[in-house]
Amino acid sequence: MSLLHHESVIKRADELVQTVYLFSQRGWCPATSSNFSFRILNEDLVIITQTGVDKDYIDLDNMMVVSLDGRVVEPEGAQPSAETLIHTALYKHFDKAHSVLHVHTPLSTVLSMKYLEKGEIRIKGYEMQKALEGITDHNSEIVFPIFPNSQDMTQLSNSLTEYLDKNDDIHGLFIAGHGLYSWGTSIPAAKRTVEATEFLLECEFLRSQI
Amino acid sequence: MSLLHHESVIKRADELVQTVYLFSQRGWCPATSSNFSFRILNEDLVIITQTGVDKDYIDLDNMMVVSLDGRVVEPEGAQPSAETLIHTALYKHFDKAHSVLHVHTPLSTVLSMKYLEKGEIRIKGYEMQKALEGITDHNSEIVFPIFPNSQDMTQLSNSLTEYLDKNDDIHGLFIAGHGLYSWGTSIPAAKRTVEATEFLLECEFLRSQI
Amino acid sequence: MSLLHHESVIKRADELVQTVYLFSQRGWCPATSSNFSFRILNEDLVIITQTGVDKDYIDLDNMMVVSLDGRVVEPEGAQPSAETLIHTALYKHFDKAHSVLHVHTPLSTVLSMKYLEKGEIRIKGYEMQKALEGITDHNSEIVFPIFPNSQDMTQLSNSLTEYLDKNDDIHGLFIAGHGLYSWGTSIPAAKRTVEATEFLLECEFLRSQI
Amino acid sequence: MSLLHHESVIKRADELVQTVYLFSQRGWCPATSSNFSFRILNEDLVIITQTGVDKDYIDLDNMMVVSLDGRVVEPEGAQPSAETLIHTALYKHFDKAHSVLHVHTPLSTVLSMKYLEKGEIRIKGYEMQKALEGITDHNSEIVFPIFPNSQDMTQLSNSLTEYLDKNDDIHGLFIAGHGLYSWGTSIPAAKRTVEATEFLLECEFLRSQI
Repeated sequence: MSLLHHESVIKRADELVQTVYLFSQRGWCPATSSNFSFRILNEDLVIITQTGVDKDYIDLDNMMVVSLDGRVVEPEGAQPSAETLIHTALYKHFDKAHSVLHVHTPLSTVLSMKYLEKGEIRIKGYEMQKALEGITDHNSEIVFPIFPNSQDMTQLSNSLTEYLDKNDDIHGLFIAGHGLYSWGTSIPAAKRTVEATEFLLECEFLRSQI
Repeated sequence: MSLLHHESVIKRADELVQTVYLFSQRGWCPATSSNFSFRILNEDLVIITQTGVDKDYIDLDNMMVVSLDGRVVEPEGAQPSAETLIHTALYKHFDKAHSVLHVHTPLSTVLSMKYLEKGEIRIKGYEMQKALEGITDHNSEIVFPIFPNSQDMTQLSNSLTEYLDKNDDIHGLFIAGHGLYSWGTSIPAAKRTVEATEFLLECEFLRSQI
Repeated sequence: MSLLHHESVIKRADELVQTVYLFSQRGWCPATSSNFSFRILNEDLVIITQTGVDKDYIDLDNMMVVSLDGRVVEPEGAQPSAETLIHTALYKHFDKAHSVLHVHTPLSTVLSMKYLEKGEIRIKGYEMQKALEGITDHNSEIVFPIFPNSQDMTQLSNSLTEYLDKNDDIHGLFIAGHGLYSWGTSIPAAKRTVEATEFLLECEFLRSQI
Repeated sequence: MSLLHHESVIKRADELVQTVYLFSQRGWCPATSSNFSFRILNEDLVIITQTGVDKDYIDLDNMMVVSLDGRVVEPEGAQPSAETLIHTALYKHFDKAHSVLHVHTPLSTVLSMKYLEKGEIRIKGYEMQKALEGITDHNSEIVFPIFPNSQDMTQLSNSLTEYLDKNDDIHGLFIAGHGLYSWGTSIPAAKRTVEATEFLLECEFLRSQI
């Protein structure tokens, strides 16, 4: 039986589809951009959105299974997102990560361009930071690294892994002119992290205007 | 019988859930933030959202009962929002308050940071002010106090109570870098106050840009 | 039989309710603000929203009938919007106006404050102007008058009438710090005019930022 | 049998209606503006929205058939959008174009005014560019031409054709103070291009603010 038809997989895939749909309604995944996944518990397998899907119309049929090294498992012939290797690099590094969400919001696109030279966005002083796993105080300083964009996914996922080997304690990362990757110990936790990060960017943007 | 199953409680809890859902769709409670309550008429009991709830999916099961001093009444083991003491402080001070709504909007977050040193936001000249209870003229000056954020809820609710003992005539308050608290003599009245306040912030922001 | 139960009235009231609901979803009538009406064909009667209605929940029961001089016709005891006299002044002046829509958008609020001293907002060069009745060229100059806000509705409607007696050729008007009034030969025509005007304000705002 | 009742036409018209509805919900076609079409495969016939349609209520009945030279085919007496000649000019030039979408977004309106003298908007450095057909790298430079607005559609479509005869490799075009035209090899491809272009404009706008 196809893994995609297992009851427990369908349940979580539904949860992911619902999250993606909400994000799409907010304009966070325009033009078939963005990709989303969850890891199957205790398996080296990942359910991920297929490439080229219009997220306004996302449904279960847009999902597929890949292995942790990025190979297609099923359905035969399905094409995963080009950025699958970023997802699998994150799963390989973070044992506890069970969902990876990647969105293309205008603010994550432009603020990651603006701060690319600094290599990071630092955020401090917001209650909303407490939505990030393990953060209990608004006075903590949160660091989100920024990586230069590349069309070479192997290179991009290697830079990422190299960074994570030295700087483990992050909640999300930006690719410059491209968007945000975030993750969590569950789909709801990953959703919470994406929403908190986007909110923090919006606050940083507004503060720069007033 | 559980208080949460009383017909009259369910009716008002439904009204609150509907309000929270609308707010969530506007992006006012991202990432499981924000909390919402109403007081049971003539009782020292409050129905409040449990902690950690994704407001995009809010339903009646996310509610719980606490006493006016913040103790859990039911369901057993449920965890109320960390900010329950702010709600109960407001109910204790304002006899007529029957609903307290707390939202995390980007503008309430950043404008409360900007004006924290002044300790208040003053607003004048808008027709929308008349949506605030007791205000009948757009030329009245409305004062919203701003409190520094803190993770110590006892301290925060005490500062609040101390302020209210001297300055009774307010329609809402900000916690810096955190958000807006507002209240009303009913759930619709509290909804109206939150919407009016957020609108006034948006106008103040736009005026600073033109 | 109540006028509100006539089939033809219900049909148009439904059309109005649907329009109001769409406007409310866009944030154009927060906090029970804004009011909306249509005139009954060949009668000196107007169907208008009752005061204090939350437009997120608007339905047919929120409507009432007033005469062209602003008296309540039915249902007995219903309270019309405080701004009923503005609606009736517009119907009395414009024979062809069959619907008047009044919204509280942030941009109409703040731009009417900014340009109050000039007494008008002039707009030119947009294709969207052609959505205004009788405008066929983007190079026409459109003038929207601005009136100072007042809590005295008789005075406000008199200023308005006085202005219209001299300047008939307008598509909408602003009350400073308050909002936009627009009208049309049908509910869809009035909806189109409101949307076009708000769009033109948004363009003017954006142009001031770039 | 009416072409509009052919099963295959209905299927694609449904797809177009759904796209238009989504665009309308985002505020991209206010006040009955904007027009949308698809070409019937292997025929010199185009299905296009009738003039004056409120896109919040769009349905299949709002569609009509025109020939590639802009004549009404059916239903008898139906009035196509005034801009039909722009659509047909694009179909005549681009053999592979099967859908043309024209939206009136605030940003396409004002940025096309700002850059009219330059005659184009150039965009570079965004991952989102890859949503445009044939673009595989974020470092490509994308050029969108801008044409002065005109009420003379023959003249406007001639300028357009003249430009395209020399500069074939474009993904969309702006008419100053008016809006965006985009197209694709299918309705989803055209939707993707419109969304990507609007996203790129929003990024350019945000970058100008930070």
